[in-house]
Amino acid sequence: MGTLVACWFAVVILVIVGLYGGVDGAYVKYNTCAGVVEGKLNVHLVPHSHNDVGWLKTIDQYYVGSNNSIQGACVENVLDSVIEALARDPNRKFVFAEMAFFQRWWLEQSPEMQELVRKLVNAGQLEFINGGWCMHDEATTHYIDMIDQTTLGHGLIKSEFNKVPRVGWQIDPFGHSAVQAYLLGAEVGFNSLHFARIDYQDRAKRKDDKSLEVIWRGSKTFGSSSQIFTNVFPDHYGPPEDGFTIAIFILQDNTLLYDYNVEIRVNDFISAAMTQANVTRTNHIMWTMGEDFTYQYAESWFKQMDKFIHYVNKDGRVNALYSTPSIYVDAKNAENVSWPLKTDDYLPYADREDAYWTGFFTSRPALKRYVRMLSGYYLAARQLEFLVGRRSSGPSTYGLGDALGIAQHHDALTGTAKQHTTNDYEKRLAIGASEAEAVVDNALSCLVSKNPGGQCSSPALNFSQCQLLNISFCPATEEDIPDGKSLVVLAYNSLGWNRTDIIRIPVTDSNFVVRDSSGYTVEAQFVDLDNVTINLRNFYVKAYLGLSPKQVPKYWLLFQVSLPPLGWNTYFISKTAKEGKTTTSFVSTLGNPQNDTIEVGPGDLKMLFSSTSGQLVRIYNSKMGVDVPVQQSYLYYASSVGDADNPQASGAYIFRPDELRPTIVSRKVPMKVVRGPLVDEVHQQFSSWIYQVTRLHKDKEHADVEFTIGPIPTDDGVGKEVITQMTANMATEKTFYTDSNGRDFIKRVRDYRPDWSLTVTEPVAGNYYPINLGIFTMDNKTEFSVLVDRAAGGASIKDGQIELMLHRRILADDSRGVGEPLDEIVCIANNSTCEGLTVRGHYYIGINKPGTGARWRRTTGQEVYSPLVLAFAHEKMEDWTASHVTTATTMDSSYSLPQNVALITLQELDDGSALLRLAHLYEPGEDAEYSTLTKVELKKMFAGRTIKEVKEMSLSANQEKSEMKRMTWKVEGEVVAEPTPLRGGPVAMSDLVVELGPMEIRTFLLKF
Amino acid sequence: MGTLVACWFAVVILVIVGLYGGVDGAYVKYNTCAGVVEGKLNVHLVPHSHNDVGWLKTIDQYYVGSNNSIQGACVENVLDSVIEALARDPNRKFVFAEMAFFQRWWLEQSPEMQELVRKLVNAGQLEFINGGWCMHDEATTHYIDMIDQTTLGHGLIKSEFNKVPRVGWQIDPFGHSAVQAYLLGAEVGFNSLHFARIDYQDRAKRKDDKSLEVIWRGSKTFGSSSQIFTNVFPDHYGPPEDGFTIAIFILQDNTLLYDYNVEIRVNDFISAAMTQANVTRTNHIMWTMGEDFTYQYAESWFKQMDKFIHYVNKDGRVNALYSTPSIYVDAKNAENVSWPLKTDDYLPYADREDAYWTGFFTSRPALKRYVRMLSGYYLAARQLEFLVGRRSSGPSTYGLGDALGIAQHHDALTGTAKQHTTNDYEKRLAIGASEAEAVVDNALSCLVSKNPGGQCSSPALNFSQCQLLNISFCPATEEDIPDGKSLVVLAYNSLGWNRTDIIRIPVTDSNFVVRDSSGYTVEAQFVDLDNVTINLRNFYVKAYLGLSPKQVPKYWLLFQVSLPPLGWNTYFISKTAKEGKTTTSFVSTLGNPQNDTIEVGPGDLKMLFSSTSGQLVRIYNSKMGVDVPVQQSYLYYASSVGDADNPQASGAYIFRPDELRPTIVSRKVPMKVVRGPLVDEVHQQFSSWIYQVTRLHKDKEHADVEFTIGPIPTDDGVGKEVITQMTANMATEKTFYTDSNGRDFIKRVRDYRPDWSLTVTEPVAGNYYPINLGIFTMDNKTEFSVLVDRAAGGASIKDGQIELMLHRRILADDSRGVGEPLDEIVCIANNSTCEGLTVRGHYYIGINKPGTGARWRRTTGQEVYSPLVLAFAHEKMEDWTASHVTTATTMDSSYSLPQNVALITLQELDDGSALLRLAHLYEPGEDAEYSTLTKVELKKMFAGRTIKEVKEMSLSANQEKSEMKRMTWKVEGEVVAEPTPLRGGPVAMSDLVVELGPMEIRTFLLKF
Repeated sequence: MGTLVACWFAVVILVIVGLYGGVDGAYVKYNTCAGVVEGKLNVHLVPHSHNDVGWLKTIDQYYVGSNNSIQGACVENVLDSVIEALARDPNRKFVFAEMAFFQRWWLEQSPEMQELVRKLVNAGQLEFINGGWCMHDEATTHYIDMIDQTTLGHGLIKSEFNKVPRVGWQIDPFGHSAVQAYLLGAEVGFNSLHFARIDYQDRAKRKDDKSLEVIWRGSKTFGSSSQIFTNVFPDHYGPPEDGFTIAIFILQDNTLLYDYNVEIRVNDFISAAMTQANVTRTNHIMWTMGEDFTYQYAESWFKQMDKFIHYVNKDGRVNALYSTPSIYVDAKNAENVSWPLKTDDYLPYADREDAYWTGFFTSRPALKRYVRMLSGYYLAARQLEFLVGRRSSGPSTYGLGDALGIAQHHDALTGTAKQHTTNDYEKRLAIGASEAEAVVDNALSCLVSKNPGGQCSSPALNFSQCQLLNISFCPATEEDIPDGKSLVVLAYNSLGWNRTDIIRIPVTDSNFVVRDSSGYTVEAQFVDLDNVTINLRNFYVKAYLGLSPKQVPKYWLLFQVSLPPLGWNTYFISKTAKEGKTTTSFVSTLGNPQNDTIEVGPGDLKMLFSSTSGQLVRIYNSKMGVDVPVQQSYLYYASSVGDADNPQASGAYIFRPDELRPTIVSRKVPMKVVRGPLVDEVHQQFSSWIYQVTRLHKDKEHADVEFTIGPIPTDDGVGKEVITQMTANMATEKTFYTDSNGRDFIKRVRDYRPDWSLTVTEPVAGNYYPINLGIFTMDNKTEFSVLVDRAAGGASIKDGQIELMLHRRILADDSRGVGEPLDEIVCIANNSTCEGLTVRGHYYIGINKPGTGARWRRTTGQEVYSPLVLAFAHEKMEDWTASHVTTATTMDSSYSLPQNVALITLQELDDGSALLRLAHLYEPGEDAEYSTLTKVELKKMFAGRTIKEVKEMSLSANQEKSEMKRMTWKVEGEVVAEPTPLRGGPVAMSDLVVELGPMEIRTFLLKF
Repeated sequence: MGTLVACWFAVVILVIVGLYGGVDGAYVKYNTCAGVVEGKLNVHLVPHSHNDVGWLKTIDQYYVGSNNSIQGACVENVLDSVIEALARDPNRKFVFAEMAFFQRWWLEQSPEMQELVRKLVNAGQLEFINGGWCMHDEATTHYIDMIDQTTLGHGLIKSEFNKVPRVGWQIDPFGHSAVQAYLLGAEVGFNSLHFARIDYQDRAKRKDDKSLEVIWRGSKTFGSSSQIFTNVFPDHYGPPEDGFTIAIFILQDNTLLYDYNVEIRVNDFISAAMTQANVTRTNHIMWTMGEDFTYQYAESWFKQMDKFIHYVNKDGRVNALYSTPSIYVDAKNAENVSWPLKTDDYLPYADREDAYWTGFFTSRPALKRYVRMLSGYYLAARQLEFLVGRRSSGPSTYGLGDALGIAQHHDALTGTAKQHTTNDYEKRLAIGASEAEAVVDNALSCLVSKNPGGQCSSPALNFSQCQLLNISFCPATEEDIPDGKSLVVLAYNSLGWNRTDIIRIPVTDSNFVVRDSSGYTVEAQFVDLDNVTINLRNFYVKAYLGLSPKQVPKYWLLFQVSLPPLGWNTYFISKTAKEGKTTTSFVSTLGNPQNDTIEVGPGDLKMLFSSTSGQLVRIYNSKMGVDVPVQQSYLYYASSVGDADNPQASGAYIFRPDELRPTIVSRKVPMKVVRGPLVDEVHQQFSSWIYQVTRLHKDKEHADVEFTIGPIPTDDGVGKEVITQMTANMATEKTFYTDSNGRDFIKRVRDYRPDWSLTVTEPVAGNYYPINLGIFTMDNKTEFSVLVDRAAGGASIKDGQIELMLHRRILADDSRGVGEPLDEIVCIANNSTCEGLTVRGHYYIGINKPGTGARWRRTTGQEVYSPLVLAFAHEKMEDWTASHVTTATTMDSSYSLPQNVALITLQELDDGSALLRLAHLYEPGEDAEYSTLTKVELKKMFAGRTIKEVKEMSLSANQEKSEMKRMTWKVEGEVVAEPTPLRGGPVAMSDLVVELGPMEIRTFLLKF
């Protein structure tokens, strides 16, 4: 073995050292040079430190080691001392995962230190594993964010060390997703995936039948071609059973001191090794030697491991060695045995009875929305940055990418960090967003300027953007429009398709006319601003911006827009002489006596409400031929604070309802209906703290439901977890489907797990799954789908029923470390006025014939993820149209991407090349037309540019696809190879056509 | 300044670094090279780590870092990482104090590491300060133990580094003694003494008038010739006001990270510096940068200090520098200003209201006795080891010296360590004692063997010694003496004087006769063993040795012996034909009707007891002409558990009685009187748990009082602190005298402190002082003195009264960190039977004419400290006398040391030379005859050897006396120099006579 050759231990030293140590109390040189030994049980000691990218402290506090009264943690010390310790003995190894921390440290190092680190990396002593910006969550993250943050980290490793991580190391996330396994695993080039947390029942069974280590095929589509060797740890990610926690249990080999314990500890070691060997296949077991923020003084760990390796190997019953997961997996692979197969995912996660980690699917819904909103914005901003060319100085999208990368951490957007840390994540996002806004501003200014040569040096324009449009705050649209001038509305479409949409902006009057760039009047609709929105606006503009705007807008102004792919269009709003609105708004109130039910919907989709109860009764689409009775209510689960059987409380991580049946908020709901040519709106006041507006837009085949929830009352001392529940009259047979990180849909069956015989202890919480794109269920007549605008927990607790948890306010902590109740409070006026957080958002209801729902879900999903980017200015319309390109696509004017392809990354890199990712949006069989091989013509996509080079890369773009090496593994009971999945072929420079098979994502580096 | 020359900071680096840091987030090389700057406020940063030689964990647990669940402390890490950190920047400095830890580390290091450490020491980066084996306590330690443990540490520093510590660093001990200042300070060659803990009232006043730093003259005798510059810290031994605790408050200078705070922290630094400057004289202040067991990862401290020095000096308002106490004191000295004068001591210590640390004067009295007993034994064992020559292998006295060195730690014999740590101290002492016993055994065997040439190669003899004689357990004397054989009793006298004493051994019968080595019958006396002793023997022999002796001895056999100085005598005990005891024991019981009072005392000293109450009434000595009515009782203070005003409880450290008046144990005491030719005994049963025997021996002028206290009952839920109280009818005017570490006597005045106007909050606890030798009070007719056999707290709460606290059992913790109530329990039979600790011991009462008490106190003190060493064998008397020297002195047969001189060290060193310490026992004016210059004739003392070289050394023997450098200091208000104290002159090789002035201790290295 190479390891033996590299063994730096001088034999001459050994001569003077006895079996157990040397001269009494004198210097002992430990023999740490063991490699793998055939025929023995090999204990792979993997030194690591688990460093949360924010949790009890902020990322920077963790890095520099401040705020240590909360937690004694300093990652700077970890890296400082690990490097020292590695330099001291070439046999020692260490793996490091979180690149957001590493980057902070790396920048501060002297050239000499950087040189030393490069040497250690090249020698394999320091190995980067996982290598994303953080160790992302797998339940509440979107796959695009997962890819982006992984690319950020892998790029740093590639550029500084020319290395490619081989190991997925998701040791702490609270359950594990299919997308992680195949997309962020196999497709980024990992040979293996390692983690600790799976359901306690699952773990027990896997220990029983030695199936903790499996071949995981997370993708139904790609099967074995995207499989990954997966190592689930027998206990947690610390040393075995805490018996080898270095800080507590010391191997003491100095015979001059008391408590000499070499023989005892060697026996302990062998005993722990045998215990693990008994639940593990082959002669190799791995010990994760580290815990949260350990190795702050690395020498103390290494010294102990040195001793263990020395004395255990002298004993000779087992072989102990410094190792890494890569070395471990190589050894496993070399054994050439068969492994159990695992499909789907490891969600949800319970660590013990009644302790389902399904609360964090929803915790901190405002943070979750902010991250999702900025994710789409980041995608658009990078497109624009690419389109006009990156600047060498000034604002860039880097800060937002950095902040989003950090926010994917498994204690960040999960909502499981302390409040002050959450504030820090949000601050980073806000600063990053603000910088990206400047990039977008500059880029749009460039793009629309009629500049000969296309080069844009000094944009003079000053666009405004409005991040608080959802609460009707947008100074640019509220402002008085001077006579003769117009409010210029520039809309950018980051999708690769033509798109029709409705723009909604707050205005102070109704005497406005909307024109398109050709001067034609566009149909518009004014809707009165409701009081709930006005109150929300007043409080939150004050809370977020410290502003008390003098005037409150009176109306929402709506108008329909039409945009080219990857392009923009411009609309002009100006005052009329009040003589006649070209459009009007229709306000109708509850209780039209003529009917028991009220029907709304300007298009094909209709919703019927009971005029007596104010509640939804039925949805139908006569054109499509679907019609389904549906009720919809708000309810809440009272949060458990623990009971006599189990003290487990509901909290930031854990969802544990006090009772199985949720409490309904109200049975009779005051209702108001607004009608108009572009939208019908149903306003329902479910309670003083729940307001819902259901909108049916012209030309849209779904209901857009806007909820406003909060402050959740807790004066009764009861925490509440609020759900919207839709009950359709359908025979769904316990079955429903939820997405994996917004990508694949996975079949779920109530009270059932495919991998083991489930003992149901929590009939509600144990059936919750994370929703990032949507959830649907079906019977032989209908597909009933609900899409979300952010991560949320969802379930189908009864047949025909879908519920989403939208907000949680809890008064107890659930004892998983965060040590704070999830009780979000917003304050104004120097904290003199505070109230519970109100959350506003959207979900989308679609009904379809069986087999046709995917098209709606996939297309609408893209539109929800990538809303129009709006920018506002004030200018004379004639002046504007004379000097600006009012509408254009950046692609060939005749081209758009196929409807089954999304452009998920277009970004200019440091070296001027472009990073391009294209994603096929459909799984095989999802849609009759779209689930097929499709093509993207790069020449047309990048019209006006000459592509000089196209390199297909791994998903994280750190290696050429052709260079990716894959291990082969035998799967238990598998005789016949699966059929090869459909994937696109190589891209020929001649035609530059990219083929994509169903679900395929392809990553390219382009040079122009 | 040399410091500037040594400054290693490359100027070229400075150029690229701005005022506050360098390029954003990039590598910054900090300028740490500041030396002292004239005209600025200099902030001396002194990096240190305070490492308790045992406390919450054992010394070895602290060293290796095991048992970290109790306390995360690992001194190995401290030393490992400090060396690394110092090697990284030559401007960094560190001071280290506790050599017991350093020795453990040093032995484990590689030659390369040792070389590096030597370089750092030579460069002044690593400085040993204090340098004893531990940081000894100053209240409950004996000066001989203080000298021994300091010598042990200083010897290691000298031999490994050829360095001499210059700084006394007693930062944590709970009050500070006069002996520490002059003897363990000035006389070991320290230029300064530093510590944190003084009375809170004293501190407040000293901060007020800038008198924290003083010139301390701890010795009345030597005054300015043994003065020391003393630096009392303004708060504690951590960084200022905890605001600079590195682990919590970080200087964050990376502009890429959040919470950048350079300006804020620089201002904080300057503000803290100004605060301290306002209570400090001169432009130099010192910051103790470290706390308990800090620097376990030293880089984290140094990195922060690097930054502070860099940015504070860039700021320029003050000057910050890496420093040591030596550098600091040099700078202070250079200022040539005047300092306040301090005399006497800093005892007792209160850290806040009602919190007098006077409980630990008595806490764990059994441990305190064990240490004191072994201290005397260690002295004798080293003498014997010297007399026969050290062996290159086999048992030595080193282990006992090591264990005693450790036991002097300020949480060891103080009784303030956790129970398991206390067990560890005791285990070390027991192992050390057992080894020393073998040394004594071997040495005695050699000495008494008639070996031609005097060389003793293979001692065949097998002596027994009896460490449990005090509870009547001594197998050698209890054994049956076969017909024809004798029990050989060899007694060794480690004092330099002729000595008469009484030997008491347990025997099973009374048909024994005692003969001296000439065969003359010696008068003997048999005394029945009392039941209390029998019960104690049964329980504790079982508890300590796991033995249940079959037979219980029936009698104490007493006989008088006479011994030459530094020599021995042999006595033989054999069976008689029972026909007639040569001596008899007289047993009388209470209630002789003839008299109300019972008078006892075979000699001049008489004690009168009331036959009705059973209590002492009067003591008189008609020969001396002193006669004083005295009552004696046992009482206890109920331990406070805190009250409404102050939650402070009494505990291991703190004495806080619940009420001011102690509770009397009994007013009527059953009494039994034993009379005989050698001793009269008065047995008093004060309660079921207090037994006292008062013995008046033939030829002794004092009462020897043996107390047996325990188990102290706590079934009433009340902790109890038991005192003996002697109330003499004397007009003592609040004044009494207590010793300083068994050496000087210091005048105490009730409710008064010489240094400030005392606010009395604890009229009892605040008047307690530590007693190691004795306590006395006087009026114009009488000196009333009480000597102790171990450290104890003592006081005179009323005129004419003396009380000693003898035992404490407390049920609450006093919140100073130990976290355990002081509730000592002893168990037998695998912990199935447990009871509170019983303590047995002695105190000694002397009455004298004014001016004559010192002679009794000094002489008796030496006898108590150095009891006879007894060794037993069984042999035919004729055979023994034929082959052994039965009696001899090791000095010239005509010589003995003067009565005012004690031999306090005689020890063979590693290089074969002898370490000799001689101590004059009297202060000037203490005794008309003895308080004078005296002489020791070395030639006669070392008869039979030729002294080739005599070097006079510092007290800790690490430098020649002539090479010791002393700083000169100006004292406020001092105009006329004091008269020069009387000291002995140089030793001429011609006559080899050592002169000693009063209180003088002289240390020599002799070569033969």
